[in-house]
Amino acid sequence: MSTLTSQMSISLDGFVAGPNQSVENPIGEGGMRLHQWALATDSWRAQHGVEGGEHNIDAQVVEGLMRDNGAYIMGRKMFGGGDGPWDESWRGWWGEDPPYHVPVFVLTHHAREPLEMEGGTTFHFVTDGIESALEQARGAAGERPVAVAGGASAVRQYLAAGLLDELYLHVAPVVLGAGERLLEDVGDPVLEPVEVIASPVVTHIRYRVAR
Amino acid sequence: MSTLTSQMSISLDGFVAGPNQSVENPIGEGGMRLHQWALATDSWRAQHGVEGGEHNIDAQVVEGLMRDNGAYIMGRKMFGGGDGPWDESWRGWWGEDPPYHVPVFVLTHHAREPLEMEGGTTFHFVTDGIESALEQARGAAGERPVAVAGGASAVRQYLAAGLLDELYLHVAPVVLGAGERLLEDVGDPVLEPVEVIASPVVTHIRYRVAR
Repeated sequence: MSTLTSQMSISLDGFVAGPNQSVENPIGEGGMRLHQWALATDSWRAQHGVEGGEHNIDAQVVEGLMRDNGAYIMGRKMFGGGDGPWDESWRGWWGEDPPYHVPVFVLTHHAREPLEMEGGTTFHFVTDGIESALEQARGAAGERPVAVAGGASAVRQYLAAGLLDELYLHVAPVVLGAGERLLEDVGDPVLEPVEVIASPVVTHIRYRVAR
Repeated sequence: MSTLTSQMSISLDGFVAGPNQSVENPIGEGGMRLHQWALATDSWRAQHGVEGGEHNIDAQVVEGLMRDNGAYIMGRKMFGGGDGPWDESWRGWWGEDPPYHVPVFVLTHHAREPLEMEGGTTFHFVTDGIESALEQARGAAGERPVAVAGGASAVRQYLAAGLLDELYLHVAPVVLGAGERLLEDVGDPVLEPVEVIASPVVTHIRYRVAR
């Protein structure tokens, strides 16, 4: 059975988004500071159709993050478009060719037909819970890993349910002081650091979640 | 001028002590889980007069933690003995030969004569604030570093005041869920990871605090 992974940038005080998240600013005030390490890399930029950037150890980490995944799961807020029934003109944040290139299963309370984008990404909208989404994502991924793309709530739910196999944290040397915490109400998971990669701007720690 | 450093074991969700701290259990419920990596080493055990333990990468980290410091600062709770005026029969948690072997400046609201222990440790009780304690500790340390030994409140105060030069965190792969946070109400310090040491049970990250 394919593994379920997730990777998140997190502040030194445990936040994965800043305070006052909104439709206009889904990552909250100061939240972009958590992602500067990635945005500075050539590999992130190439994935998002932007030129330039640095080719450093962090760029190699970014390259590895999306290479192998056979399917993604994401929360409704991460897909965006506001709460409630769908405005079907909303097709995600990423333009017509999203950086996923495999099926993406969106957790939502509101049904919607699958949305086929360019480049291999199709968004499927799942209304019957996280286990159903995982089953469907595994069906699509075959032997390849399934990744919970975010947001924090989706990752928390899979971790708390004991369904996550790996949590890869990018610890940014930033103190946000407020915002949305990742590791709250997740029980007492047994984690084991299995890989650590250090750069001058972030520390990448891959944790295996023991069963 | 000698540098001011601190090192702390911290949970993945940001706690340096568990909930319900008390005189009997100053580290709180589950707080000892943060220190298992150190307690398992031969070097920690030797420092505390106990035989055995593992000689591994974490043992080397422990050896380095106390080797160079010329003086320590600690909060009243870390020295112990309860709140309020001193019961002078209380001589700290560490027996007659504490593991410091240099002067230790205890932040307190209650004056007390210096307490000379065996092995070079003398506890000085400072009632006129963190800057005075730092000045006295620097006077005692000469060129060597001064370390804030703890607890969390003392470290927070020096960090928030912009007086800390280095924060060395030992990130334990433990989710405590509740307790005392280290990085709360410390403002927005600019941190730079300058050294990372990984072991199977903990990730050591040394941060330089920029000015």
